[in-house]
Amino acid sequence: MAQAVNADLQRERQNATFDVDQLTYFLHGGIEKTRRKRYLQNLAIQGIAKLQHRKLAQLSREEQYELLLRKFAYVSELEKQLGLSDPTDLYHLNEAVMTHEPSGFTLHSAAFVSTVEKLASDAQKEKWLPLMKSFRVVGTYAQTEIGHGSFLRGLETTATYDSKTEEFVIQSPAVSSIKYWPGGLGKTCNSCVVMAQLISNGQNLGNHFFLVQIRDFNTHEPLPGITVGDIGNKFGFESNDNGFLKFDHFRIPRTNMLMRYSQILPDGTYISPANDRLLYAGMTSLRAMIVGSNERSLCMAVTIAVRYSAVRRQSEIEPGSGEVQVLDFQTQQFCLFPQMANAYAIKFASKAIMAYYHNVAVHINKGNLEELPILHALSAALKAYSGWICTEGAKACQFACGGHGYSEASGLPKIFKSVEPSCTYEGENTVLMLQTARFLVKSCSRIAKGQSLPGVLAFLQMSSGGRSSLDNSWSTADLILAYKHRARRLVYDVAQKLQTSIQQGRQSGDAWNANSVELVKASVAFAQLYIVETFADVIEPLNGRLKHVMETLWQLYAIHGISSCLGDFLQDGFFSSHQVSLLQSRLLTLLAELRPNAVALVDAFDYPDAVLDSALGRWDGNVYEALYDYALQSKLNEKQVLDAYHKYQRPFMESQWKQNSLPVVQSHL
Amino acid sequence: MAQAVNADLQRERQNATFDVDQLTYFLHGGIEKTRRKRYLQNLAIQGIAKLQHRKLAQLSREEQYELLLRKFAYVSELEKQLGLSDPTDLYHLNEAVMTHEPSGFTLHSAAFVSTVEKLASDAQKEKWLPLMKSFRVVGTYAQTEIGHGSFLRGLETTATYDSKTEEFVIQSPAVSSIKYWPGGLGKTCNSCVVMAQLISNGQNLGNHFFLVQIRDFNTHEPLPGITVGDIGNKFGFESNDNGFLKFDHFRIPRTNMLMRYSQILPDGTYISPANDRLLYAGMTSLRAMIVGSNERSLCMAVTIAVRYSAVRRQSEIEPGSGEVQVLDFQTQQFCLFPQMANAYAIKFASKAIMAYYHNVAVHINKGNLEELPILHALSAALKAYSGWICTEGAKACQFACGGHGYSEASGLPKIFKSVEPSCTYEGENTVLMLQTARFLVKSCSRIAKGQSLPGVLAFLQMSSGGRSSLDNSWSTADLILAYKHRARRLVYDVAQKLQTSIQQGRQSGDAWNANSVELVKASVAFAQLYIVETFADVIEPLNGRLKHVMETLWQLYAIHGISSCLGDFLQDGFFSSHQVSLLQSRLLTLLAELRPNAVALVDAFDYPDAVLDSALGRWDGNVYEALYDYALQSKLNEKQVLDAYHKYQRPFMESQWKQNSLPVVQSHL
Repeated sequence: MAQAVNADLQRERQNATFDVDQLTYFLHGGIEKTRRKRYLQNLAIQGIAKLQHRKLAQLSREEQYELLLRKFAYVSELEKQLGLSDPTDLYHLNEAVMTHEPSGFTLHSAAFVSTVEKLASDAQKEKWLPLMKSFRVVGTYAQTEIGHGSFLRGLETTATYDSKTEEFVIQSPAVSSIKYWPGGLGKTCNSCVVMAQLISNGQNLGNHFFLVQIRDFNTHEPLPGITVGDIGNKFGFESNDNGFLKFDHFRIPRTNMLMRYSQILPDGTYISPANDRLLYAGMTSLRAMIVGSNERSLCMAVTIAVRYSAVRRQSEIEPGSGEVQVLDFQTQQFCLFPQMANAYAIKFASKAIMAYYHNVAVHINKGNLEELPILHALSAALKAYSGWICTEGAKACQFACGGHGYSEASGLPKIFKSVEPSCTYEGENTVLMLQTARFLVKSCSRIAKGQSLPGVLAFLQMSSGGRSSLDNSWSTADLILAYKHRARRLVYDVAQKLQTSIQQGRQSGDAWNANSVELVKASVAFAQLYIVETFADVIEPLNGRLKHVMETLWQLYAIHGISSCLGDFLQDGFFSSHQVSLLQSRLLTLLAELRPNAVALVDAFDYPDAVLDSALGRWDGNVYEALYDYALQSKLNEKQVLDAYHKYQRPFMESQWKQNSLPVVQSHL
Repeated sequence: MAQAVNADLQRERQNATFDVDQLTYFLHGGIEKTRRKRYLQNLAIQGIAKLQHRKLAQLSREEQYELLLRKFAYVSELEKQLGLSDPTDLYHLNEAVMTHEPSGFTLHSAAFVSTVEKLASDAQKEKWLPLMKSFRVVGTYAQTEIGHGSFLRGLETTATYDSKTEEFVIQSPAVSSIKYWPGGLGKTCNSCVVMAQLISNGQNLGNHFFLVQIRDFNTHEPLPGITVGDIGNKFGFESNDNGFLKFDHFRIPRTNMLMRYSQILPDGTYISPANDRLLYAGMTSLRAMIVGSNERSLCMAVTIAVRYSAVRRQSEIEPGSGEVQVLDFQTQQFCLFPQMANAYAIKFASKAIMAYYHNVAVHINKGNLEELPILHALSAALKAYSGWICTEGAKACQFACGGHGYSEASGLPKIFKSVEPSCTYEGENTVLMLQTARFLVKSCSRIAKGQSLPGVLAFLQMSSGGRSSLDNSWSTADLILAYKHRARRLVYDVAQKLQTSIQQGRQSGDAWNANSVELVKASVAFAQLYIVETFADVIEPLNGRLKHVMETLWQLYAIHGISSCLGDFLQDGFFSSHQVSLLQSRLLTLLAELRPNAVALVDAFDYPDAVLDSALGRWDGNVYEALYDYALQSKLNEKQVLDAYHKYQRPFMESQWKQNSLPVVQSHL
């Protein structure tokens, strides 16, 4: 469809007050990097177009699974051809071809190879990595069990060392111990890293990692002692064969335990790791990556919803004056613009946490683990907060598109279904927030002891605050101070309550649990503070009109965040009633101010149509033609009259006729 | 699987402080009605078991569509056999067999026949209804177009009267005018009621209704001039053939216009309706019904999540003391118990609004339309509010079940996907809230004029309130007063702002739009007030331990609602900081108080396992066995090695091997 661009969208783009290219370059690290991204994505999109003739959502699970294997193979081939190895290049390529579409190979590099790289000894790596990287050994990471998730000590799978044969016997002792959920495990992988309780000489030595082959390398049939398969349909990720895996006294060589940190000697002697805090580091990087994928989901959802809201005309504002763009309704702006602000905010936070991770990683490699706890607390809080906020945002975008938002044609269900489960995988959000809270509470006692804290915790060292001096000059510092004040108060309040509970005789675990709702709240406030500050820092170097727009967006982010939990700021009198009224009316003013730049702000994300995969979010705005096109592709339309009509519908109808003595119906009414 | 009941669940049931049967009978209108429900549902469940060998979510869309036709036919047959006609009986039967599973026939009675019954003349009804009720004529209701939803005047489909042939010419003038979304339209129906702009003698007379045959009664092929089909995959409702419909100068007889209220005479003369307010009445009943289906979704989701949380053990509270039921975590209680309270609250509100509808309907039938605007405002607000709150609740329940919540085995995705779209269909929620707001604002000016208002608006006639006298005696009246005070303040505040805007020279539509975010907020407060009061009224007649539990649940509902928008109550000083602290700690106390009765409170809903359709929500709590069973049924497990392996995976792997000069891999690692 090479059609003219919808006139409303065209006008929106003309009316933007800033240069959208300038923002795109800013977001993508400059003009050269933006060009590189576009070049790679266009190449991939053109290449992949030949593979897929029907929208993913119109395919059966079997077909989706198959298509994604092909897409993965295509991208791997293209990477080789182009000789790519830069992570950003690879990211762009994958985004162009498989956004929100995991394949059976998705965890092969991201979790299987990377775990072996981290936890295997040098000798093991030398033997295995070439086999893995050349896809002879295809694997995944098997930790979660049907009855056990976040609490790793609860895992039931055992690896019992048999010194006679120098083998481990891997066993699933109960239904609840069956490995369940690992991506690619069901049908694709022939191997995996298994987390299991190591038992040697009758002693349980805790969880360790084992490289386990599960399918024959030639026939791909499961090996004897292995029961493996797909876990069935889920909410999203249809193209992935998340699997189950059950061991029946399955034996592997002693040398298949990953031995970089812990070891079992041939006689069964256990050598414990010098330092297991390094195991943390991998999790923090994965969590930082999830912040990025959450951000991308929200950016895409907002792009779709804002563009569609500029194209969609419905209802009149002044009776008789004609239907208006739904983006002109204040309620629509209130639904979408805070999400647009969230998208930018999480995008900047995601970049910041990733940069921080790389920074800390350098220190870690030099043996300095000092910053690991902060990195862990921050990445946990951001993973959890971004998951919640981006899920909420994707849902709001779906709702903002009316009925069509629920059609898979919109691309929104796919986005929503891919972001929501992120609240649970790689650390359940509540559990993560409580880990961060533990760090925050500990930090309070470090202050009490006069120890110094890293910069990100400076808010805990502020004086107790008092009242805000916010007025209608809308100073950035005043708004940030509000977040600092609130985070500080919530952390100290709950720390105090914990102490009181314990003084009153509660056991520490019980006291912790009895205050956990407020502990989570404190961690959320910490995450919000980090994000609002980072956002302000990132846009600081900008100038001119672009800076003005980004400051407006930042202010919307800051004020919307405050107004969503006003009680926190009113309860201790930090804000006065008058200040709250000012904030409330400012919020509505900001919506109106951002209105002319809404489309440009989402255009700046620079998602090609093929990546958005949305009839509603198309660059050219020809949404109704695209929806109709989508409908025509429905599998149910392959026949005018379905077999089901002849087999079930007609016989039922006829059985009803017979029961009523009515004349035979004519062929026309 | 006839297994023992999980020991934790058993203990939960033993420890409940009230008689769960007593509550079940209360919810279902007495012991006799409960028995009747159980009898009918058991019968239907046993009968239907033969049709379905695989969980719905594991079927392709074609298979789901087919299965639902068969289920519909089965239920129709059973209704006939048992001679059922009582709406409650029919409801229970449908619930047992097809909860959250619409068939192509779903709108035949609910929207097609019922519209004809309301809008056709007596002569038309005499001719058509027998054909419809005996399924010769199978239909749906076609209003929404691809480019037009809530704003009916914007619909583009035309019905132009041709007096020469005494026919209407139905036409879809543009892609945006194609009918899109009607349930059952794609493949099942051979007819439908079409809403179109009536044009006669060159004059547009606005939207009217037409009975249109679209498929041949014998061959089921679309008639010439008709293009019809399925709209493709959606977020939920996979088993329904929501359809599109395009007219190309399609002719129908003059007598196919529904002529109860408006008429076209043979010469094209238009006779306009005496009173079209009656058209409202149908919408209000449909919206009241949606409140009921939203409530059911939340009740089911909460049943699943609470039972699973009693079975699931994870993490320790005191280190080393063993894993606890996740229901013991305060954060889990905070996630689920307010949803349990919401479920009861919306259930009672749903019954109340339905009773009110029937009450008003009696007056309407006597020609008294006075209460129609109140009914309309209330049903619109409750439809919208219940949609939002039950969607939020279903999502919370899914999250509360961890990873397994995202498996279709849990039953939760099906529930979520069926409740979320209710925020858009039958009146987009924001649009409805604004309709209610218009009624509330008008009511303020009626008060100013000294007119009296119905009881449900009494809060608008209160004096301005001042400060709450709430203290730790937790009086019901004090809590309700808070809701009244807030609703009153928000309605008057926004009415005042509207007036100011207009006085400042804004056009009325513009002023309305510029205050619409706060108008919606006022309507939400109105809905919440109605619900919290209704809940208190309904449980008033109870006594003993049951009453105590229900009062605790009510108080949680009331306090959680306040604490979710604390700013509203603090901003004008209605609550003091001290009162807010009291409320916050009371909320946590209530969670602990409800803990022993949580399972009993969801058991009382009395959903059979077959209706819950959930591995996690099973009565017997054998959740892991059920999850494993579900996995084994996955279609991807029909073959150990998929064709995709031979066709795509293996060739890709081999292509990688060739590029690396590595030794051939052995069959075992």
